[in-house]
Amino acid sequence: MEQVTVFAPATIGNVGPGFDVLGLALEKPGDTVSARRVSGASGRVRLVEVTGDGELPKADESNTAVVAAKGVLQGLDISWGVDLVLHKGLPIGSGLGSSGASAVAAAKAVNLLAGEPRDEQALVGLCARAEQSACGAAHADNVAPGLLGGFVLVQPGGALLRLHTELSLTVALVRPELELKTELARACLPEAIELADVSHNLSALAALTYGLGAGDLQVLRSVLDDRVAEPHRAHLIPGFFQVKEAAMTAGALWSSISGAGPTLFAVCEDEQRAQHVTAAMSAAFERLGQAHQAWWCKVAQTGAHVV
Amino acid sequence: MEQVTVFAPATIGNVGPGFDVLGLALEKPGDTVSARRVSGASGRVRLVEVTGDGELPKADESNTAVVAAKGVLQGLDISWGVDLVLHKGLPIGSGLGSSGASAVAAAKAVNLLAGEPRDEQALVGLCARAEQSACGAAHADNVAPGLLGGFVLVQPGGALLRLHTELSLTVALVRPELELKTELARACLPEAIELADVSHNLSALAALTYGLGAGDLQVLRSVLDDRVAEPHRAHLIPGFFQVKEAAMTAGALWSSISGAGPTLFAVCEDEQRAQHVTAAMSAAFERLGQAHQAWWCKVAQTGAHVV
Repeated sequence: MEQVTVFAPATIGNVGPGFDVLGLALEKPGDTVSARRVSGASGRVRLVEVTGDGELPKADESNTAVVAAKGVLQGLDISWGVDLVLHKGLPIGSGLGSSGASAVAAAKAVNLLAGEPRDEQALVGLCARAEQSACGAAHADNVAPGLLGGFVLVQPGGALLRLHTELSLTVALVRPELELKTELARACLPEAIELADVSHNLSALAALTYGLGAGDLQVLRSVLDDRVAEPHRAHLIPGFFQVKEAAMTAGALWSSISGAGPTLFAVCEDEQRAQHVTAAMSAAFERLGQAHQAWWCKVAQTGAHVV
Repeated sequence: MEQVTVFAPATIGNVGPGFDVLGLALEKPGDTVSARRVSGASGRVRLVEVTGDGELPKADESNTAVVAAKGVLQGLDISWGVDLVLHKGLPIGSGLGSSGASAVAAAKAVNLLAGEPRDEQALVGLCARAEQSACGAAHADNVAPGLLGGFVLVQPGGALLRLHTELSLTVALVRPELELKTELARACLPEAIELADVSHNLSALAALTYGLGAGDLQVLRSVLDDRVAEPHRAHLIPGFFQVKEAAMTAGALWSSISGAGPTLFAVCEDEQRAQHVTAAMSAAFERLGQAHQAWWCKVAQTGAHVV
């Protein structure tokens, strides 16, 4: 294989009460990386172009695509190097795992060029480290679903658990046009969580993952709000509570901040409901005069894949 | 109905990483309450006898059986009262929901005598309040599985979620002969939990309930240790870590302190494994010279029931 192009989907990290441990992959948008072997450039990785709309990340050594690709090739005895072209379909600073998607697409593409020396768990580890070097914090709950698809539970120590469900869950999304740095959203979090709030989140997440496994919509309707991150970050998104309430009133199963924000998501039982919920969330931001994008899509059953 | 006898099973609260929210019912042991209508004693509840082995709770107004039974009758327009006889099959101060089992058996019995004016959720609430008045803390994660059977997730606000599973899980138990007051075990807990430990427990409990719902033993093998309560209570049970390690080495799915202790439990895939694990845990306490009882039983599929 001389050249390959891989699409990696946007992801939601911190899915509701699953702070830092539960992520899911979205069908759209996503980043695309084309990787091409360059003979005689042993192990060198170059990002030759970044395309896409809006503000684009730098095409330099610090780009997560480059860091992840280098990680894949590190220690391999190869005479060739790689040129990468990154197409951003995913805005940066949106809370949709933008830097993670670039890393995942690049890592998977380069791993394919090299004959797949790394397994999925190793790729997730490399992508999480790429995110850490670029953004200061590793988000395996973004990169893991980006690579594997679906809902993924990240266990301490790095083990990954793909949560299968019979349900056709669909996600409503609204992204207000304001950039929110992950570092700032992290800085808002307390160092410790009160015991009652810990129990609250444990119960909420336990219902969520049980509901997925059992394929029980009724249980998913009982999923409670996040009390670990959401209360400390909501003020960073003007109108958060109004938009969330609009989603719940319109019949979403649950709703919260995607990753570190500012995108809000609402998980819905099907496409019809998601369409309705998206319109309600969008209308709520409109009433507040907040410019935003709104869309809906299914939870992606496949993660990063060759296109 | 003039008289009825109800058995309520022992329960495990704080099942592993599910601090304060996940409980399960055991097939044995349990408490039995006989309730008899006494005409002309409008609404009065009397505990006329307490039988059983070992240290027995007082047969007075403060007994959780009396408090729960009174709660059931409160506000009902009745001319009769109730005499209760409580048979303790369950030692107090063991961490197996002893006071909760008495409350559940009495509440269910008296509710039957009164023509079932209270639904299950109301009974759980009454029993939890009975526990609170007797022990200073409400443990719905004990009384809920005692009433409903199986694994029960207690949600903030009191909603109950019975977690159904296709698996035939069996529990190994060892009870060291030392009494541990719930108040002391509670006092050991910190007021807040560090964020990394919160994520750890969220991930561990999410895997547990997903594994139950999906009927996936492999997932249940990946359930991680509790970091909310166990690390702060382990020192109250001399030999805790050796006994737990013995359980895990013998092939338990996961193991921790039952409720506030000192009983240790280990959940196993089937009866054969539970037998093996029970022997290993017992041998570990024996090596430490710690007197104890050891047994195993299935997770009870039915909760409190007429006998």
